[in-house]
Amino acid sequence: MELISIGVIHSPYKRKGEAPHQGRVMNEEAILEIYPEFQEGIQNIEEKKHIIVLYWCHLGRRDVIKTATPWGPEIKGVFATRSPNRPNPIAFCVADLVKVEGNKLYVKGVDALDGSPILDIKPYVYELDSIEGPEDTL
Amino acid sequence: MELISIGVIHSPYKRKGEAPHQGRVMNEEAILEIYPEFQEGIQNIEEKKHIIVLYWCHLGRRDVIKTATPWGPEIKGVFATRSPNRPNPIAFCVADLVKVEGNKLYVKGVDALDGSPILDIKPYVYELDSIEGPEDTL
Repeated sequence: MELISIGVIHSPYKRKGEAPHQGRVMNEEAILEIYPEFQEGIQNIEEKKHIIVLYWCHLGRRDVIKTATPWGPEIKGVFATRSPNRPNPIAFCVADLVKVEGNKLYVKGVDALDGSPILDIKPYVYELDSIEGPEDTL
Repeated sequence: MELISIGVIHSPYKRKGEAPHQGRVMNEEAILEIYPEFQEGIQNIEEKKHIIVLYWCHLGRRDVIKTATPWGPEIKGVFATRSPNRPNPIAFCVADLVKVEGNKLYVKGVDALDGSPILDIKPYVYELDSIEGPEDTL
């Protein structure tokens, strides 16, 4: 299972530790640059208000199986956390799609480090992806 | 960027075409079997009601850049659809976590074909992952 990079993220977060724990609450804009060979794939994306972005945490450690979190002292199984350090360091964000210009998607809500490879973009679908009721917290 | 399989999905959908277009609305149960070397990673997951499951669409075609959808005649860019056929065929589901027994997670809402490799599991977090308002539809 070999991944290919469909593009690259340009973000204000240049170094490990600069990215917020979660981008969702931030107002910073990032640019998702889609490589020319995949540009046809973003046709119609401008119809969407929110998108799912899967990207590769290229500085993530892959040997982490238990970890602390920013939210408390407890050591948890890594799959019960949102740590970027995990066996397959695929990050998931729901982003606001601000505008599309050619092969560039301008988004808010992405907490990626600058230079992160983009793996996939999907439309966010309310009926499928939103669970009603704030019962799931960090 | 080479992925490793952290487990395998056991589902009632044995053949391409049998899986529903979206598992979210189905009542079928699937089992996420986590391989022993990653079992420590699911510690604390039982505290969560909903989880994000990333899995590999092992029968997906990777050369698709535009595609039709089950919802209409229009041909769209693949990144504006939820098609399992895409350059990196990583599927994303929000699943109800029914129970955990040892290295097995019993879930509802997963539309994977039987035998799909599991890539990652993350806790679903309402504040981050839910967009309020049903403005995003299929």
